[in-house]
Amino acid sequence: MTLSLYAVTVPVYVRLLTALRDNLDKAQAYADEKKFNSDVLVGSRLAPDMHPLSFQVQSATDHVKGSLARLAGRDIPAWPDDEKTLADLKARIGKAVDFANSFSAGDIDGSETRSITLKMRSGEVVVDGQSYVLTRALPNFYFHVTTAYAILRHNGVPIGKRDFLG
Amino acid sequence: MTLSLYAVTVPVYVRLLTALRDNLDKAQAYADEKKFNSDVLVGSRLAPDMHPLSFQVQSATDHVKGSLARLAGRDIPAWPDDEKTLADLKARIGKAVDFANSFSAGDIDGSETRSITLKMRSGEVVVDGQSYVLTRALPNFYFHVTTAYAILRHNGVPIGKRDFLG
Repeated sequence: MTLSLYAVTVPVYVRLLTALRDNLDKAQAYADEKKFNSDVLVGSRLAPDMHPLSFQVQSATDHVKGSLARLAGRDIPAWPDDEKTLADLKARIGKAVDFANSFSAGDIDGSETRSITLKMRSGEVVVDGQSYVLTRALPNFYFHVTTAYAILRHNGVPIGKRDFLG
Repeated sequence: MTLSLYAVTVPVYVRLLTALRDNLDKAQAYADEKKFNSDVLVGSRLAPDMHPLSFQVQSATDHVKGSLARLAGRDIPAWPDDEKTLADLKARIGKAVDFANSFSAGDIDGSETRSITLKMRSGEVVVDGQSYVLTRALPNFYFHVTTAYAILRHNGVPIGKRDFLG
């Protein structure tokens, strides 16, 4: 077993997204038990000028599809950001897991030195595959999946760090 | 440039910890501006049964020193969890950054297959270095640095995702 770009992306994405989807099930069960509409959680935020749960899930999954497609030289699929319910968010996570699982190690490995062009607000930036994964894709992915967890936790959903880790 | 255990740990730890330390400076400036005692932030939590900011910083830095020492076969330094102020937390982050920077690529690389023995509540678990980093050290590290950010953000500290990323 040697360390590879595949090993640091696909299995990590799949494990944490699967855990997040399970945590949305626990959020639904919690809403049912407390008799509140779980749609409230979809729009919940940790601060008025932070993004809600829906955005955290959309953004985490965007980093998954964007990073894997860019590394493998595939087109990035467009997914409308129109999720309104926990079930919608679970479906989006399912799409991202399926997309991640469609890549083999051979699709990803070797892209360490591939030039990746990113369209930023400030213009185009070109980085190599390894820098892209380690300084952009993974930190952003972790940021959004952890923030999604924190929003659920802040709202009382009975989950712990082991549920985050999967 | 090839992907290595050093590349996915030391520079990632140093960049995100440095950013977190900068964010604690911004938290202090915010407290000064709003005229509240910044020690309040040290004990702040996102939920009553979640750990406070101090724990998030202690735990993030514990994963840094624990993972690097285990991979390199060094002793893990013991740091008392006695931080009471933002300045104390900044000092702890500084210690973790210095510790991380004391490892060279040669100390860490090649430890992918090294057997790492972890003492868990349920008993001892033996994993290889790569699994340890990818399924335990990094997810835990990211979890705690993101939660620390979220606690600051929830309390109004004017920072954004770029401040998290460093």
